[in-house]
Amino acid sequence: MPVLVMKFGGTSVATLDRIRRAAKRVGVEVSKGYDVIVIVSAMSGETNKLVGMVEETSPFFDAREYDAVVSSGENVTAGLMALTLQEMDVPARSWQGWQVPLKTNSAHSSARIEEIPTDNISRKFGEGMKVAVVAGFQGISPEGRITTLGRGGSDTTAVAFAAAFGAERCDIYTDVDGVYTTDPRICEKARKLDKIAFEEMLELASLGAKVLQTRSVELAMRYKVRLRVLSSFEEQSDAAGTLVCDEEDIMESKVVAGVAHSRDEAKMTLVSVADRPGIAAAIFGPLAEAGVNVDMIVQNISEEGRTDMTFSLPINQITRAEKALNAAKDSGSVNFHGLVTDDRVSKVSVVGIGMRSAAGVASKMFKVLSDEGINIKVITTSEIKISVLIDRKYMELAVQALHDAFELEKEG
Amino acid sequence: MPVLVMKFGGTSVATLDRIRRAAKRVGVEVSKGYDVIVIVSAMSGETNKLVGMVEETSPFFDAREYDAVVSSGENVTAGLMALTLQEMDVPARSWQGWQVPLKTNSAHSSARIEEIPTDNISRKFGEGMKVAVVAGFQGISPEGRITTLGRGGSDTTAVAFAAAFGAERCDIYTDVDGVYTTDPRICEKARKLDKIAFEEMLELASLGAKVLQTRSVELAMRYKVRLRVLSSFEEQSDAAGTLVCDEEDIMESKVVAGVAHSRDEAKMTLVSVADRPGIAAAIFGPLAEAGVNVDMIVQNISEEGRTDMTFSLPINQITRAEKALNAAKDSGSVNFHGLVTDDRVSKVSVVGIGMRSAAGVASKMFKVLSDEGINIKVITTSEIKISVLIDRKYMELAVQALHDAFELEKEG
Repeated sequence: MPVLVMKFGGTSVATLDRIRRAAKRVGVEVSKGYDVIVIVSAMSGETNKLVGMVEETSPFFDAREYDAVVSSGENVTAGLMALTLQEMDVPARSWQGWQVPLKTNSAHSSARIEEIPTDNISRKFGEGMKVAVVAGFQGISPEGRITTLGRGGSDTTAVAFAAAFGAERCDIYTDVDGVYTTDPRICEKARKLDKIAFEEMLELASLGAKVLQTRSVELAMRYKVRLRVLSSFEEQSDAAGTLVCDEEDIMESKVVAGVAHSRDEAKMTLVSVADRPGIAAAIFGPLAEAGVNVDMIVQNISEEGRTDMTFSLPINQITRAEKALNAAKDSGSVNFHGLVTDDRVSKVSVVGIGMRSAAGVASKMFKVLSDEGINIKVITTSEIKISVLIDRKYMELAVQALHDAFELEKEG
Repeated sequence: MPVLVMKFGGTSVATLDRIRRAAKRVGVEVSKGYDVIVIVSAMSGETNKLVGMVEETSPFFDAREYDAVVSSGENVTAGLMALTLQEMDVPARSWQGWQVPLKTNSAHSSARIEEIPTDNISRKFGEGMKVAVVAGFQGISPEGRITTLGRGGSDTTAVAFAAAFGAERCDIYTDVDGVYTTDPRICEKARKLDKIAFEEMLELASLGAKVLQTRSVELAMRYKVRLRVLSSFEEQSDAAGTLVCDEEDIMESKVVAGVAHSRDEAKMTLVSVADRPGIAAAIFGPLAEAGVNVDMIVQNISEEGRTDMTFSLPINQITRAEKALNAAKDSGSVNFHGLVTDDRVSKVSVVGIGMRSAAGVASKMFKVLSDEGINIKVITTSEIKISVLIDRKYMELAVQALHDAFELEKEG
């Protein structure tokens, strides 16, 4: 029998009613002849409640105990889903991570999957079981302790199972009905994409289109797992949602697939830094140690052996960054004349694998923004993405203008 | 190092504050030089919540999935307790049932413990760990699935660990401060017992003095585990609570240790049953199959080869019993002229190992009740217990009169 992996996130299993609705979807796939592996998250709110209790108990907690506590939410959902399927006369049973066993390394709270033996579950499929319900987000370390994969790890669990079992597809059921050309709350012309390439999805995910966890997309790309994102709140056909797939599976792709944005960015400039080899490491080393997620980096050559260094970061990490940089200055490892922070910027990006072969996307983007009177503060580019930092007040306008200019409302 | 087992019930770990208080008690025992095994229940209310979700999902649930779901509450408490101890600089870690592994048979939802290997936890004690926190109530079947021991199974877990590790004592922390001569809500002269024999405790527990689960007392008696019941809500000395121990450990015991009661009983009489061999089996077989917990049974020889058969049962099982008996009558396996039900009776018992060697307890009991004008409807006796069924309205009066007559308010 072909294997299908179906993953249901927290909102899709938030109540017993919703679990029933999800189970019905599973039943439909079983009736098509699939052996189904269902990956479930904790009922929505549960993991946050458990994390809250751990943090209140122990601010600098032992991650091994944290994992043992927070993994329990998924166990509950897995059992309830198996029972629901049984009630519908679908032969099903639950597996907790250690029962599979889903083997990970020992990096508690952010463990990496090392192996998923398939014999146990495959044997049950051979015996007539139709659905294996697996608690997502969790595994077991070489020491026999429970590990978790980090928040959103259930997506990664699903893709890893799809890869291990050679599944025909991995369907991620969530509370949105697919991946859009841009955020529909900002741009009413936003259109759902039928297909998107892994690389594009990666850029969109890391840019704040929080549909899929980045790691799961990376894993899917590496193992060529066809990922489908679709809503658990609507009746679904086989063509529903958005298929995240290999570039070659997309017949004709547009130059630009989507416009992404990240609202709460900040820009920090170190004014007049000594321009010497190793200066970037001296600046960004301490920032990384302080847990600052530096994103865009631009260095301007100024004069007399001194330069200005500008970077962007999430707005809520400004204090942390300032502390780290002032400490570095005090210790003498970095010298700068001033630190200028702008906390009213946003990032807007256009993403598309078609850019690789099409020239002129950057200049078109800059012209569109210029025509709207929007000043660009920082620019970075990759093979399939161009990002700019602009004043936050222009963010919506920029997204809409770019969506129009690249005609994203039209079908591919 | 000597090993001490400490068990904390649901109300003793109901909040993070209470877990902290319990952890402090554990810390005190560690500072005395014990290696401590802590058995925890789920935070109070959690197990009921999980059971409710399972029953709503599937009225005739797969007990394997039930166990997988309801065991999760204990896992949460175990992790939180380990974290709390670590915060107090007490080296601790948590174990879930399958990690020990606490091996049981495959009787899901009411599994029996088969083996508790000690090497894993003992090695950790050898490496400097001071407290092993174990999730109570759960184990693992030969098939590798999670089992539970039935409600209240955490007491049983605690005693089994004490037996396996040769613990010096097994302290059961609960919301009462010990075992009383009778229910203090009924008789204000009720006195806390310092010591009670296993056999007495068994009779009291099964008679509704719900301090300890019957199975845990049986297990403690078999393996001679010294059990102490004490309150987690009071400062405790080494002599606090009630020690449940071997008869020989009690120097001078009173003839009667306590007066027990069970309020919601019913009495059922089958009038004029054919008095032939096998008739008792023909009556009580169908009742057992219907899940009726028959307690006292009395048969009166009447005349002409017919007899009346009377038995007591919990009041909420009357309908079930009537159905089973009428079905048996319809099938022709039992014949009786009438079925008389009295749902306004209660059971009162006096319990004490001293009865074995002292005569006259029964006649004294009957005289006390008679002096109060209380009519006895059914009598049963064992070596260490005399029980009577009386009108419910006299129950409090009977308990108080017996408590007075046997001078239970006075120290041993």
